[in-house]
Amino acid sequence: MTATRTVELEGHIIDSGMMGRCFGLIMDMGGSFEVEQFDIGRHKHAESYARLAVSADTDHELQAILHELHQNGATLLDPSDATLEPAPADQVVPTGFYSTTNHPTFVRVDGEWLPVDDIEMDCAVVVERGVQRTPDGSSGDDTEPRDGADGGPRAYTKVLNAVEEGDMIVTGEAGIRVEPPERPRGDEGGAFGFMQGGVSSERPSESLIAKVADAVEQTKEDGGDVLAVCGPALIHSGAADDLARLVSEGYVDGISAGNGFAVHDLERGLYGTSLGMDMETMEHPRKGHKHHIYTISEIIRAGGIEAAVEDGVVTEGIMYECVENDVPYVLAGSIRDDGPLPDTITDAVEAQNAIREQAREADMVLMLATLLHSVAVGNCLPSTTRVVCVDINPSTVTQLLDRGSAQAIGMVSDIGTFVPMLADNLLDE
Amino acid sequence: MTATRTVELEGHIIDSGMMGRCFGLIMDMGGSFEVEQFDIGRHKHAESYARLAVSADTDHELQAILHELHQNGATLLDPSDATLEPAPADQVVPTGFYSTTNHPTFVRVDGEWLPVDDIEMDCAVVVERGVQRTPDGSSGDDTEPRDGADGGPRAYTKVLNAVEEGDMIVTGEAGIRVEPPERPRGDEGGAFGFMQGGVSSERPSESLIAKVADAVEQTKEDGGDVLAVCGPALIHSGAADDLARLVSEGYVDGISAGNGFAVHDLERGLYGTSLGMDMETMEHPRKGHKHHIYTISEIIRAGGIEAAVEDGVVTEGIMYECVENDVPYVLAGSIRDDGPLPDTITDAVEAQNAIREQAREADMVLMLATLLHSVAVGNCLPSTTRVVCVDINPSTVTQLLDRGSAQAIGMVSDIGTFVPMLADNLLDE
Amino acid sequence: MTATRTVELEGHIIDSGMMGRCFGLIMDMGGSFEVEQFDIGRHKHAESYARLAVSADTDHELQAILHELHQNGATLLDPSDATLEPAPADQVVPTGFYSTTNHPTFVRVDGEWLPVDDIEMDCAVVVERGVQRTPDGSSGDDTEPRDGADGGPRAYTKVLNAVEEGDMIVTGEAGIRVEPPERPRGDEGGAFGFMQGGVSSERPSESLIAKVADAVEQTKEDGGDVLAVCGPALIHSGAADDLARLVSEGYVDGISAGNGFAVHDLERGLYGTSLGMDMETMEHPRKGHKHHIYTISEIIRAGGIEAAVEDGVVTEGIMYECVENDVPYVLAGSIRDDGPLPDTITDAVEAQNAIREQAREADMVLMLATLLHSVAVGNCLPSTTRVVCVDINPSTVTQLLDRGSAQAIGMVSDIGTFVPMLADNLLDE
Amino acid sequence: MTATRTVELEGHIIDSGMMGRCFGLIMDMGGSFEVEQFDIGRHKHAESYARLAVSADTDHELQAILHELHQNGATLLDPSDATLEPAPADQVVPTGFYSTTNHPTFVRVDGEWLPVDDIEMDCAVVVERGVQRTPDGSSGDDTEPRDGADGGPRAYTKVLNAVEEGDMIVTGEAGIRVEPPERPRGDEGGAFGFMQGGVSSERPSESLIAKVADAVEQTKEDGGDVLAVCGPALIHSGAADDLARLVSEGYVDGISAGNGFAVHDLERGLYGTSLGMDMETMEHPRKGHKHHIYTISEIIRAGGIEAAVEDGVVTEGIMYECVENDVPYVLAGSIRDDGPLPDTITDAVEAQNAIREQAREADMVLMLATLLHSVAVGNCLPSTTRVVCVDINPSTVTQLLDRGSAQAIGMVSDIGTFVPMLADNLLDE
Repeated sequence: MTATRTVELEGHIIDSGMMGRCFGLIMDMGGSFEVEQFDIGRHKHAESYARLAVSADTDHELQAILHELHQNGATLLDPSDATLEPAPADQVVPTGFYSTTNHPTFVRVDGEWLPVDDIEMDCAVVVERGVQRTPDGSSGDDTEPRDGADGGPRAYTKVLNAVEEGDMIVTGEAGIRVEPPERPRGDEGGAFGFMQGGVSSERPSESLIAKVADAVEQTKEDGGDVLAVCGPALIHSGAADDLARLVSEGYVDGISAGNGFAVHDLERGLYGTSLGMDMETMEHPRKGHKHHIYTISEIIRAGGIEAAVEDGVVTEGIMYECVENDVPYVLAGSIRDDGPLPDTITDAVEAQNAIREQAREADMVLMLATLLHSVAVGNCLPSTTRVVCVDINPSTVTQLLDRGSAQAIGMVSDIGTFVPMLADNLLDE
Repeated sequence: MTATRTVELEGHIIDSGMMGRCFGLIMDMGGSFEVEQFDIGRHKHAESYARLAVSADTDHELQAILHELHQNGATLLDPSDATLEPAPADQVVPTGFYSTTNHPTFVRVDGEWLPVDDIEMDCAVVVERGVQRTPDGSSGDDTEPRDGADGGPRAYTKVLNAVEEGDMIVTGEAGIRVEPPERPRGDEGGAFGFMQGGVSSERPSESLIAKVADAVEQTKEDGGDVLAVCGPALIHSGAADDLARLVSEGYVDGISAGNGFAVHDLERGLYGTSLGMDMETMEHPRKGHKHHIYTISEIIRAGGIEAAVEDGVVTEGIMYECVENDVPYVLAGSIRDDGPLPDTITDAVEAQNAIREQAREADMVLMLATLLHSVAVGNCLPSTTRVVCVDINPSTVTQLLDRGSAQAIGMVSDIGTFVPMLADNLLDE
Repeated sequence: MTATRTVELEGHIIDSGMMGRCFGLIMDMGGSFEVEQFDIGRHKHAESYARLAVSADTDHELQAILHELHQNGATLLDPSDATLEPAPADQVVPTGFYSTTNHPTFVRVDGEWLPVDDIEMDCAVVVERGVQRTPDGSSGDDTEPRDGADGGPRAYTKVLNAVEEGDMIVTGEAGIRVEPPERPRGDEGGAFGFMQGGVSSERPSESLIAKVADAVEQTKEDGGDVLAVCGPALIHSGAADDLARLVSEGYVDGISAGNGFAVHDLERGLYGTSLGMDMETMEHPRKGHKHHIYTISEIIRAGGIEAAVEDGVVTEGIMYECVENDVPYVLAGSIRDDGPLPDTITDAVEAQNAIREQAREADMVLMLATLLHSVAVGNCLPSTTRVVCVDINPSTVTQLLDRGSAQAIGMVSDIGTFVPMLADNLLDE
Repeated sequence: MTATRTVELEGHIIDSGMMGRCFGLIMDMGGSFEVEQFDIGRHKHAESYARLAVSADTDHELQAILHELHQNGATLLDPSDATLEPAPADQVVPTGFYSTTNHPTFVRVDGEWLPVDDIEMDCAVVVERGVQRTPDGSSGDDTEPRDGADGGPRAYTKVLNAVEEGDMIVTGEAGIRVEPPERPRGDEGGAFGFMQGGVSSERPSESLIAKVADAVEQTKEDGGDVLAVCGPALIHSGAADDLARLVSEGYVDGISAGNGFAVHDLERGLYGTSLGMDMETMEHPRKGHKHHIYTISEIIRAGGIEAAVEDGVVTEGIMYECVENDVPYVLAGSIRDDGPLPDTITDAVEAQNAIREQAREADMVLMLATLLHSVAVGNCLPSTTRVVCVDINPSTVTQLLDRGSAQAIGMVSDIGTFVPMLADNLLDE
């Protein structure tokens, strides 16, 4: 054994599994460890502390172990500052750049731990040292200098395509601390506390919907924002009226969707059909299969959704309520779109940036019957945002919950019955 | 061309596709035909008529063609009587026996067309000529002689395992007429008329549930019986209270389910849990995972479900309402059962016979979140019984609707929201 | 009855179901008809002919009926020319524009039936009368005047966003003829003839794969092009080597995929992993979860995929074989992309145009484990292109086959075993 | 705090998560604990040891905590003997009976820890004290006295329906020790060691199949038995020949299936079809849909499968190879069976007993495309048996792996390609 470093574990390290994972990792990777100190929290809410001396045969192996420990929340006892290197060109990161997790993260700069703003998975971390500059290329869109409030250094994330030549990028793993969120325990978790992981269609649907309603209520009472990520199946399955009510009653603060969602909602307003099917009688009126393309051409003719609402062309529906109630929406384009509507952002990078803004403002996200848009939003979420995911396809729910959110509810259900029941819970009281 | 026979097609032969299929079949099989007469129904409700001379190179080929035409509803112009041969031993049919479809079927005996009673797929047809005998082995359970009302001959189905030595079994294909049901057209179909085939999760759920409720209402108003075929997911998903209400209010006239369904319903009554999960709080009380086995042992101790209700051990739930309201139930055993309960019929053949009785009495069947029991019931249904199938898994719905029922609605939905909404539609008016 | 028009049906109108559908439509819509002439094809390959006088109460109702008949392949006996109106602005179609099906279509201009080039669903039809102009906005990318070969008028499709002010657009339904393809019958269909519709996981996989291989062989022997539409699951499931072999051996003439597909293929080449999992050992090497983002940054650093191949950074895999063998690829961007790679087309409309070119050149399309890209390609395909769709999710296969292709094979299978077996069939002979 | 007991944890208690779970449980349930001793295993293969004093406010609460700790592998420092009570009647257990897990379990009788034989989930534990009796009703079928080898006491499981009046049944939780298996770590697990849990269709299929083949090889080399649990989809998907080869080459030591599986295998031998589809050409020969019922009647006529093989009626297929190679099979009946075949065990309890024997003899179980039979077999397996589960439906795989087996591989794949590839791996070397 030639290389040894001391690391600390702190918090609910036992029942969150952190300690077990760290011990296992060290052994799996061929290292060894001594427990130098170990204080067990005596009560449910008390934290524990462990200090370990970790050893490996070579410094290279030790670094690999420390990398993994660090990803699991361990911190070096005697940390150095993070290493910073300039980006050699626009969109090009320095070799060995640190790629983020979606957990709260801190970097050590000038001996101080800075929180990394706008934490999001698979980004680079940029550090600014209070220089006056306009970070146009930052993933945010504010044009004020983004140094710390006190003019000191500031750390934040950038996706690869936003990196600019000269950005000071964190490389390696020294001076970085990650805080994986602990799973809420019992009554601590509030409305989300009851979730014990796993996705199943075998849970009581009405009780689960009532819990989701409670979580929405609680989020709104706490002054938080609820973002609804919506797929077109929501319209086809007849849930549009109820989502429109939730928008007009202030329970939804933003909509993230695609061109098809808006088209089918507008088609319903213009023709009473969705994909050509009458939503009441379930008949297919003649030429109904052409309604969606007529809808698109009408909205193009009007100059966009807002213009169509103002002109009285569109008089009901989700998009209508968004316009009337100033609820912002992002319609992200995709290669399967018809049209598209003038409101649809066809460039994927631009659309991602718009989604990123929505994701950052959201305190709770409802993912409603869309895999594509839910993944896009999920990619931008920190692990601390509450997420509810509803889809008829269990694989979709599993895939969306698999992203490390600490407070996530998955429900395999019919969006056409879920939204009406959620609306009944929230509105009919 | 050496062999020729004349066949007739009658009814809505054009828009039902029957004529197209028959023409196609003849050509596919290398035959040819002359249209001797062709009268097209001039109105929507008028029937058409076609008479064809069908030819083939050999008599053997002609027979094969006629077999297929017959399965599609064509009848020979100059039919002979059906061929009857005695079963050589119990459960053993004569070689070349005629195996039934699930469509209304007639056999020609002594120059008369007899309807085949209790038509069901994959059975033998037994003809009795008014002899006084007790058909114990018949798939029915009555012990009266089963000849025709007038003492004349009678035809009915028997599954293979019920065939008895000496039964006169129809063989070959002569003297048999099948009437595939026509798909209901527009307003003719009533509540079921709106269905245009296909299974999709992209239909308006609330509208569809309202239509199902209408069909249940209509069935009850017509004096019909509604059979609910139920899987355990109905309990886990929290729909038990609403199904219990439908039973107590007289909307369900029979339950066909398995041991697990009853166990979880009873567990909910005894412990408030289903598979160990509290149905209200969704928590897993300690030892909850043992509740189902304790439930079984309590019911065994009481001597069965009815005794447990009478003893006051069971005081609520679906099984309770069945006992209290004299709604008959069949609990069919399976190899994955725990216990089983004393009420469970563990022999598959006995259970099929019990299910067969239920199926024959049903005018409408609700298949609720179970593939196994739905297939078992579906196997016994004629193609004229109304069927509604609800499951979260689209493959299950597709498989169940693929059985040739003329009046079937498939819905990919969450049983935990479907049943409450159906109950609201039926009860809260 | 005040309004009457005569229509003709021609072809395999009986066994294709066309006649039955037309008769049914007329009756469903409240019309009536007289069969004025009816000649039945006497042989399997002979065509039939029917002439009907169709009547309705009002001219308006008659038009509606004729619209539906026309969509099903009937033609007016005495047609008028198509109506043409100029587009009032870029991207804005005249009210009442004719929206295309994906079936071969003809428009009548100056008394002549013109085929509509580049037929594709949900487009406008533009007619040019041999005027010299450069149709930049046309959905194609050629810059030659697009009038007919003889300088006469020409008709072709444009998606809504490509319509330019002044384009002469077909409106209404007069003067339009649609030819829905007939389902191939028996041996006529060659390798695709065996398909009798429906999607099922219950078909013999090896036999089905052998048929697909035959169809690929036949397409290549006929000088046709095979387009592979690929999702990232193809890489994760270990099928990349075999697809790379098919590319290098000339069985695949184009790849249509997304950023993720390319990233994971390149990751495999650079690190031996896909999504961080070692493809041989199935272990997750440390930092493996960062390989995809490192891969992206390496390709950006190199300047793109082709540059990375030329620089020797990338030395194997599907993208490598595409570059080495001049097999064109389109990487269409989406909002869930990391990076993206410099080669990814981030604008959805641009990407659709690139996909449209691929779709038009393809004689056979393999849709391999991707819903998004398959729908995008499928949207651009005429109903006459051969399609094979393979996915582990039956709903995906159903949805993709539901688009009216006459020659489509759906297979619910594991892409990680399908591609190797297909390659064995094609390469090891 | 009034009640305190001391418990011990031993083994890989940290990286298996056992310690974390136990600490968490105590705190969740309102208890507290002191760590009296804690020795951490220093090496990968070294075990750790912890001794805890657990306290709660009341004795009742403490018992609840100890119950949960015990289910997770903790043992009381100073155990008492297990409590035994006689069964009051056949099939009736004493109130408060101990219901088993599927983990290795020991009961303390007369101060000695006895292993519980034939451990299986949801059973009662019967203790015999060396009395000479013939335990006909035991879930086993041996007729020898089942006391310990040395004539001392013996403990074994009985399902509820096998309990006989007077059986001495373990009640309460004192004197019981459960040893949840540890997940294999790295190279310790051999062919199964690579599995890191989770079910995904996104794993390299060929590599995974190779690993399964290795595990089969290893099982056979170790003298173990491989049980194949098979659904009818295996036949429809064309995998029957390859499974038949595996049977004839000695890689499969038992088949557990249903009536339908055997019928379709036999149909393939008699007619070349499965569910009426030709397995080579994929055509549906005329009358093909009747082949399965003809097959059943032929086998009934012959007197059963073995007789049909001996008579030369059946000359190929899986059932044929089973008969020829003396590979035992269990065909368990179900309510959806046609026929059934004379070989099918129609009583569910009898069938479960037959399956139980198979399960106990198996060292490795392949669950191939059947949920019903896999659950039935899985119910009888101890958590230490190796399980491979393959199904096209991810929900089925998830459900089957959710049963606490320590060595389980789940694979979402196409059984029609899996079995041929597995056979290639095992046979073509």
